[in-house]
Amino acid sequence: TGKHYMMGIGKIEYQPSAGPAETLCFKHYNAKEIILGKTMEEWLRFSVVYWHSFRGTGTDPFGGPTIKRSWEEGSDALEIARNRLRAAFEFFTKLGNKYYAFHDRDIAPEGETLEETNKYLDEVTDVALELQKQTGVKLLWATCNLFSHPWYMNGAATNPDAHVVAFAGAQVKKGLEIAHKLGAENFVFWGGREGYQSLLNTNLRTELDHYASFLKMAANFKKKIGFTGQLLIEPKPKEPTKHQYDYDAMTVMGFLKTYGLEGDFKLNVEPNHTTLAGHGYEHDIAVAASYKMLGSIDANTGSPDLGWDTDQFPMDIKNATLIMKIILEQGGLSPGGLNFDAKVRRESVEPKDLFIAHIGAMDALARGLKNAAKIVQDGILSQHLKERYNSFTNTIGQKIEKDEATLEDCEAFIASKGNPSLISGQQEHLEAILNHYI
Amino acid sequence: TGKHYMMGIGKIEYQPSAGPAETLCFKHYNAKEIILGKTMEEWLRFSVVYWHSFRGTGTDPFGGPTIKRSWEEGSDALEIARNRLRAAFEFFTKLGNKYYAFHDRDIAPEGETLEETNKYLDEVTDVALELQKQTGVKLLWATCNLFSHPWYMNGAATNPDAHVVAFAGAQVKKGLEIAHKLGAENFVFWGGREGYQSLLNTNLRTELDHYASFLKMAANFKKKIGFTGQLLIEPKPKEPTKHQYDYDAMTVMGFLKTYGLEGDFKLNVEPNHTTLAGHGYEHDIAVAASYKMLGSIDANTGSPDLGWDTDQFPMDIKNATLIMKIILEQGGLSPGGLNFDAKVRRESVEPKDLFIAHIGAMDALARGLKNAAKIVQDGILSQHLKERYNSFTNTIGQKIEKDEATLEDCEAFIASKGNPSLISGQQEHLEAILNHYI
Amino acid sequence: TGKHYMMGIGKIEYQPSAGPAETLCFKHYNAKEIILGKTMEEWLRFSVVYWHSFRGTGTDPFGGPTIKRSWEEGSDALEIARNRLRAAFEFFTKLGNKYYAFHDRDIAPEGETLEETNKYLDEVTDVALELQKQTGVKLLWATCNLFSHPWYMNGAATNPDAHVVAFAGAQVKKGLEIAHKLGAENFVFWGGREGYQSLLNTNLRTELDHYASFLKMAANFKKKIGFTGQLLIEPKPKEPTKHQYDYDAMTVMGFLKTYGLEGDFKLNVEPNHTTLAGHGYEHDIAVAASYKMLGSIDANTGSPDLGWDTDQFPMDIKNATLIMKIILEQGGLSPGGLNFDAKVRRESVEPKDLFIAHIGAMDALARGLKNAAKIVQDGILSQHLKERYNSFTNTIGQKIEKDEATLEDCEAFIASKGNPSLISGQQEHLEAILNHYI
Amino acid sequence: TGKHYMMGIGKIEYQPSAGPAETLCFKHYNAKEIILGKTMEEWLRFSVVYWHSFRGTGTDPFGGPTIKRSWEEGSDALEIARNRLRAAFEFFTKLGNKYYAFHDRDIAPEGETLEETNKYLDEVTDVALELQKQTGVKLLWATCNLFSHPWYMNGAATNPDAHVVAFAGAQVKKGLEIAHKLGAENFVFWGGREGYQSLLNTNLRTELDHYASFLKMAANFKKKIGFTGQLLIEPKPKEPTKHQYDYDAMTVMGFLKTYGLEGDFKLNVEPNHTTLAGHGYEHDIAVAASYKMLGSIDANTGSPDLGWDTDQFPMDIKNATLIMKIILEQGGLSPGGLNFDAKVRRESVEPKDLFIAHIGAMDALARGLKNAAKIVQDGILSQHLKERYNSFTNTIGQKIEKDEATLEDCEAFIASKGNPSLISGQQEHLEAILNHYI
Repeated sequence: TGKHYMMGIGKIEYQPSAGPAETLCFKHYNAKEIILGKTMEEWLRFSVVYWHSFRGTGTDPFGGPTIKRSWEEGSDALEIARNRLRAAFEFFTKLGNKYYAFHDRDIAPEGETLEETNKYLDEVTDVALELQKQTGVKLLWATCNLFSHPWYMNGAATNPDAHVVAFAGAQVKKGLEIAHKLGAENFVFWGGREGYQSLLNTNLRTELDHYASFLKMAANFKKKIGFTGQLLIEPKPKEPTKHQYDYDAMTVMGFLKTYGLEGDFKLNVEPNHTTLAGHGYEHDIAVAASYKMLGSIDANTGSPDLGWDTDQFPMDIKNATLIMKIILEQGGLSPGGLNFDAKVRRESVEPKDLFIAHIGAMDALARGLKNAAKIVQDGILSQHLKERYNSFTNTIGQKIEKDEATLEDCEAFIASKGNPSLISGQQEHLEAILNHYI
Repeated sequence: TGKHYMMGIGKIEYQPSAGPAETLCFKHYNAKEIILGKTMEEWLRFSVVYWHSFRGTGTDPFGGPTIKRSWEEGSDALEIARNRLRAAFEFFTKLGNKYYAFHDRDIAPEGETLEETNKYLDEVTDVALELQKQTGVKLLWATCNLFSHPWYMNGAATNPDAHVVAFAGAQVKKGLEIAHKLGAENFVFWGGREGYQSLLNTNLRTELDHYASFLKMAANFKKKIGFTGQLLIEPKPKEPTKHQYDYDAMTVMGFLKTYGLEGDFKLNVEPNHTTLAGHGYEHDIAVAASYKMLGSIDANTGSPDLGWDTDQFPMDIKNATLIMKIILEQGGLSPGGLNFDAKVRRESVEPKDLFIAHIGAMDALARGLKNAAKIVQDGILSQHLKERYNSFTNTIGQKIEKDEATLEDCEAFIASKGNPSLISGQQEHLEAILNHYI
Repeated sequence: TGKHYMMGIGKIEYQPSAGPAETLCFKHYNAKEIILGKTMEEWLRFSVVYWHSFRGTGTDPFGGPTIKRSWEEGSDALEIARNRLRAAFEFFTKLGNKYYAFHDRDIAPEGETLEETNKYLDEVTDVALELQKQTGVKLLWATCNLFSHPWYMNGAATNPDAHVVAFAGAQVKKGLEIAHKLGAENFVFWGGREGYQSLLNTNLRTELDHYASFLKMAANFKKKIGFTGQLLIEPKPKEPTKHQYDYDAMTVMGFLKTYGLEGDFKLNVEPNHTTLAGHGYEHDIAVAASYKMLGSIDANTGSPDLGWDTDQFPMDIKNATLIMKIILEQGGLSPGGLNFDAKVRRESVEPKDLFIAHIGAMDALARGLKNAAKIVQDGILSQHLKERYNSFTNTIGQKIEKDEATLEDCEAFIASKGNPSLISGQQEHLEAILNHYI
Repeated sequence: TGKHYMMGIGKIEYQPSAGPAETLCFKHYNAKEIILGKTMEEWLRFSVVYWHSFRGTGTDPFGGPTIKRSWEEGSDALEIARNRLRAAFEFFTKLGNKYYAFHDRDIAPEGETLEETNKYLDEVTDVALELQKQTGVKLLWATCNLFSHPWYMNGAATNPDAHVVAFAGAQVKKGLEIAHKLGAENFVFWGGREGYQSLLNTNLRTELDHYASFLKMAANFKKKIGFTGQLLIEPKPKEPTKHQYDYDAMTVMGFLKTYGLEGDFKLNVEPNHTTLAGHGYEHDIAVAASYKMLGSIDANTGSPDLGWDTDQFPMDIKNATLIMKIILEQGGLSPGGLNFDAKVRRESVEPKDLFIAHIGAMDALARGLKNAAKIVQDGILSQHLKERYNSFTNTIGQKIEKDEATLEDCEAFIASKGNPSLISGQQEHLEAILNHYI
C-alpha cells in the first residue's frame, strides 16, 4: 500500500501503433523483444538518475526552482529522503527501467559531521535495499558527490589542502561501502572540481599525482572489502572548472596508463561531455571501446551551439544508432548501462514531463538498437571497413603491423612498387548507406 | 657577393628609444643582453620557418596568391630553390635569428619518383649546409611533409593503404638523413592527416597501432644512423581532419606511454593548436613542462573567436610572459627553441611586412622574457604556490603523496580533525600581481 | 552526339526498394510524386553548384588537388570552359536536378583586362544558354566572385581603395547582365571578404556605409535593365575574414533596414554558416522566414565540432525535416531553391562519389519533405503552437499585441488577477512528437 | 557611527610605487589626475554592481554558497536588506567608485504580492537615497530582474502567457519609478530569458513583436513620468536560453530600427557577452560606437576557452587599452559608465578578495586609459586609418560614398584606369605600434 506519488500515470505500456501526440507510451522499446539473441532490456540496461530526476528542481544560474514535487513535502529531512526513495521506485516500476544511479548526497541528508552524515546514509540505504528487493530494480552505479560542498571548492582529490583530500577519502570509503551493500554493479568517479581555475595558483603535476594516489587508495579499498563492481572514471573537459583533468577519453586513458591504473578503472562516457571537448557525439564512446575501456554510458545530449552541459535527454535517432552499433559490436555494455544523466528542461514542470522525457529517450535508443542490429546483421559497413585495411594482411603492410619493418624496408618497397595510388574514402557513400538504416 | 633580395632593408638593429611608428628595429630584443645568467639569444632561440615565410603566398581557401617574392622568378625549379635558400639566409642574417626550420618539400622540388625527389633534396641541402656554415645559422628542426601530396589524403602513417604508409616511411628515412646531414637539433612529426574525417570509414584502433609502429621505425632508424636530434610530436586537435589523433599534449603523452614511446619523443607545442583544442593559450606548454616533456615551441597565436589555425605572429605581452616564465622555470628550451610557425596576413604583401612581423614577435617575447625574469627573481608567485601545497609536507598529506595512506587513514584523520575549512584561491590577487610585471 | 564525360553512369532512377549498398539510385526522391498538392520537384527545386562540383579539385589549406576530371583535359582555357559546361549539363540531366548556380569566374576564364574577361563570359554564356534550352535546366542564381582575385584581398564593396570598389561594381554590372541573359531566377551577394581582419586598420562604419552604397547601385542597375530575378544576400559570420559583416540572418535584416534596402533584397541562408555563427542548424532559415525574408537556401551542413565551413552534403534526416517544414509552411521557396553549396570530401576522388553525394542529399531532403508533409497535415505541432499564445487573443494580451497597453494597464491587470502561474514548455513532449515523424 | 562591515580594510589609496604583492592599493588609478583634459574619474565612471558583489555567494550549478558576508546575519529580510545597503556604501566609499547599479530584486526582498514587494522596494530605496546623499555615490543604472522568478521561466516580455508579460510590465513600471526617485542616469533591459529553448514550442516573430511592444510601453512610461535616464539594451547571445533575442550589438541595433525604437534606446555592451557571440573582445563596443549607439559598458571578461558567462574582472591591459581608445575617441561614456558586471571567483571567499578584484580591474582600466591617451595624442593610428580611405575623397570614390555613382560609372572608371593594385593591410605593423603603447 503506502502513498502513491504519481497519481494518474500508470505503468508505461508498449503501444507500437499509438499516434504522434501520444507520448506516454513506448512505440519502440519493447523490453522482452529479442534483438540479435538478447532482449532489448539486456542490450539497453536503462538506468534512471536520482540527482536530476529526484533532486532536480529546475534551478539554473539565473533563477531558482521551478519544479515542485509532491514527495518533497514535510520538514523532516530523513523522512523526506525515505519518501523520495519510495517515489523514485514507484517511478522506476512504472517506467520499467531496471537500474538506477545516485550520488551519496542525493539520497540522504548531510549532517554536521561525517559520522552523522554516514548514519543518515545507513538509514536511507536500508530503505533503498528493501525497495530494490521488492521491485527487482538494481543499482547500476553509485558515486560520491565530491564537488558540491563548499570545502570542495578547490577540488577534492586534487585540493591543495590535504585536509580536504582526506575528507574526500573518508567519503569515498563510505561510498564504496554502501555501493557494496546495495550490490552496485559499478562505482563512478566524476572529477567534479578536479581541475584548475587558473594556472597562477595551480601546480598541475602535483595535483595529478595526488589524483592518482587518491584513486589508488580507492582501488585498494575496493579489493579489501570484496566489492566487485567496476570502477569507472567519467571524462569531462571543463565546467565547473576552467580545465577538468579528465578532459576526454584519450586523456583519461593516458592518465590511467601513466599511473599504472589501467587495470582498475574503465570509462563512463557522457556524450554531452564529449561534444563539450570538441569531438563528435560518438567519438569518446568509439575511442574507449576501441581500447576495450568502455565501461558504461551516461546517455544524454547537449546542444552543439551551446558551450555548457545541458544534460538533455538523448532523442536523436542517428546518434542513438551510432552508439548502439558500437555497443552491439562489443557484445553489450554489461556490467555498465545506459544511464540517463539528463534532466527535464527547467520549463518542463509537470511530473508527466519527467515520464515523457524518459520514454522519448528510451524509444530513441530502442530505435537506435533496431537500426544498429540491421547494420550489424547486413554486415555491409563492417565488411567495407575490413576491406579498407586489407593491404595490412601481407607484404610490407603485415611487417609494419607486426613491428618487423624498418624505414629501409619501406624505401625498398617504394623502389620496387613505385608511387601509391589514390583510393576514394567514399564518405558520402557510407553516409548514404547509414541513412538507409535510420 | 651574389644577388640581394631584400634591398632597402638592412640589418635589424636594437634601438630601444625608437618611436611608435618605427617597427623595423628591435626595442626590446637585445641578443647579447644578459638575463638571469644567459643571453637573450640563449633563452629565446628564435627560429624562422621556411614554409610560411619563404613558401607562403597568401593563398587561402577563398583566393589565390597575393604575395610575390623577387626570389621566385625563373623557370628552373632547382635554381629557384637555391635562390630561395639564399634569400632566406639573407633574411636570417638581417633579422638576427640563429635557427630555421623546414619540411623536406619546402626546400626542394618534388620529382616524378622518390629517387628523383631525393636527388633534388641532396642538391639543395648541399647549398643549405654551405649557407649554414657561412652564416652560423643552424637548423632547429627538420620535418617531413606527409600531408600535402594527394596520396596522403587519407593519412600517412595511419593511411588504410600500406603502400602509402611505406612511402611515408621511405620519405621519413630520407628526412632523418638530411636532418642528420644538416645537424638539425630536433626532428618533428606533425600529424598532418593522421586522424579521421568520418568514423564510418575508420578503424580507430588499427590506425593508432599503425601510427605507433611507424614512430618506432623512425626512432630505430634515428639511432641506427647516429642522429642525435630530439624527436618531437606536435599536437593539434583538428584541421585538416575532423579529428587529429595528436589532439593535445595530454593525448600525445598518453599515446606515447601506451605504446612505450615516451623515452623517444618529446612535444613541440603550438599555442594556436592548444587554443583550437579548447584550452587556454599556455595550457599545453604547462602540461608538457610539468611532465618534463616540453621539447620545443611553435611560437604563434590564433584568434580566440576563430575556429581554425590562423598562425599569427605572437604579439600578446601577457601570453609571452606566461610562456617565458615556464621556460625560465625549466631552465631553458634547448635543444628546442621558439620557432615562428606564423605567417604574415594574406593582405601583408610587402617584404617589409615579413620583417616587421618577425621583429614584432621577437620584441613581444623579449618583453615576456624580461617580465618573467622579474617574476622569477622576486619569487612571489612561486612562493605563493609552494605554500598552497604545504599541507602535503606532513601527516596525512605526506602519506597520501607517498602512496602510503588508505581510505581508513583518511577516515581516522577526519574523525580526529573534523571538517576542513575554506581557503581562498586568491585568483584575483594573483592576477593583479601578474599585471604588476606586465 | 558529342563526348560523354560520365561513362558508366546513366540516368539516376527512382528505385524505392533498392538495397542499402545501392547508392546510385533514388529511394525517396521521386520527382513527379505529389506531396500536398505539388510535385516533389516543385517543392524541392534542387540546384547543383558549379564551383564545388565542376571547379572543385579537393584542394585544402594543407594540400593540393586530389580530384581529376576528364573534362579538364586540354590547354585552351576557353575550350575547357565549354567542355566543362557540357559535362555539367550531362551531369544535371543524369541526376535530374532542374537548376544550377555559378559565380561569373567559375564558368569562364579570366583575361588580362575586364574587357577581355567579359568577352570570355559572353562566349561561354552563349554555350550555357544553348545547353539550358536543350535540357530545360535553368539558372537558379548567378553571383559574382568578388573575393578570389588578389585585389579583393581587403574586400570588394568594402575595400578601403575606391579603385577596387569600382572594379567590383563593374564586375557586378556584367554579372547582372549575364544573369539577365540566362534568365536567372535570383542573383546572390555573398560577402566574401566584406568584413575585417583587424579593427586596427578598419573603419567599420565607413565600410558598412560603402557596402550599402554598393548594393544600391546594384539594385538600381537591376531595375534599369529589367532583370526580374530576386536579389539575395547570403549571411556568413567569419571566414575568410575574422568578422564578416553579413554575420547572420538578423544582422543582415537589420543592415537592410538601416540602409533602406529591405525591399530590394532577401536572404540566401546556408545552414553551415548558421552553425558557424553559433546558432542551431535551422535557426537562420526560421528567422528569415518569420520576417518573410527567406529567399533561397544553400542546402548543406557542417560538422558541429569544427570551426570552419566544411560545406558537406546535407544528409541528416531530422534537419531535413525541420527545414522542409518551414518551407511547406511558407508555401514553397520559389523563386529560390535548395542549392547544394556542398562539395564531395577531398578523399572522394571518383566521379561516382559526386553522384552519390548529390543523390544522398536529395534523398535526405525528400525524406524531410515527406516527414514535414505529415507534420503539416496532422497539424499537431502547429495547433500546439497556436494554443500556446492564446492569451494574446483577448484582454491585456490583445492590448499589448496591438500596442494599446500601458505599464499602468499591466499594473492594474496584476492588481486584479494576481500572480501568474507556471505553464510547462513541454519541450520533451514536442521532441518526442517530432521523432514520431522521422 | 553605526556598524562597520569591512574592519581592517580602510580607504584604498593611490600608491604608485607599491610592490608587486601589495594589491590593496591603486598603482595606476588616481581619481583626480587629469588625462586629456578630464580627470580619470570622469573618463572611467566606475560602477560597482550590487548583484554579484553584495548578493553573490559563490553558488554555481555544481555547488552551493561558499561566500559568507558579515552583513547577511539576522532573520528579518528587510533589516538585512538595509544593512547590506550600508555595507555596500561603506565598500563604495572605501573603494572610491562614484557609481553603483542594481536589479530591483537585489536590493529589496520579494513579497507574496506585487503590492507587498513594491512596498519593500519603497522602504529600502528610501535608505538608498539617504546613503546616496551622504556619500555622493550615484546610481549609474537600475534594471528589473525579469528572469529569476519561476514564472519568468518562459520569458518575460516574450512569454507566451500574456499574464506574465503583464506582470513584467507592472514590475518595469515600478522599476522606472524607483530609478527616477534615485536619479539613475540610465535604465537597462537585459533580456534574461527573452529568447527560446526550442523552436518546436516557439513562434519567433510573435515573441519579437511582443518584445517591441513591451519596450514601447517602457519608453512611453519613462517620458510620462519625466525620467530622463537613458534606456539601454544589453546584448547577449545565449545563456540561460539556447538563443537570446538580443544576440549581439548588430542584432539589437537592427531590431530597434525594425520596430522604430532606435531613438529611445542605446546599448549597454558587455564584453563577456560579445565573446560568447563569437566576436573579438572589443567588437560590440566598436560596432555600437560607430553607429553612436554605445550607451554604457559592463566592464568584465570571460575566458575565451569557456562557453559560458564567467563574469570575471577585466584585468587584461591590451583589452583595456582598446576599449578606452574607443571611449576617448567618442569623447567619453557619460551618462554611461564602466560598470563591473563581474564577480569574484567562487573560491575567493575573503572580503579582501572583493576589494582586490575591483582594485585590479580599476588599475587595469586606468592603465588602458593612460595608454589610449598616448595613442590618441600621438595620432599615428588614427592618421593611418584616415589615409587608408583617402581614395573616397575624390572622383569615383566620392561619388560612390555620396550614392551618386552607378555601375556604369564603375565600368567606365575601370575602362579608363585599368586594374587595381594591391595595397598592404599592414596588420603586423599596426599590432607592433599598438604594443608600443602597452
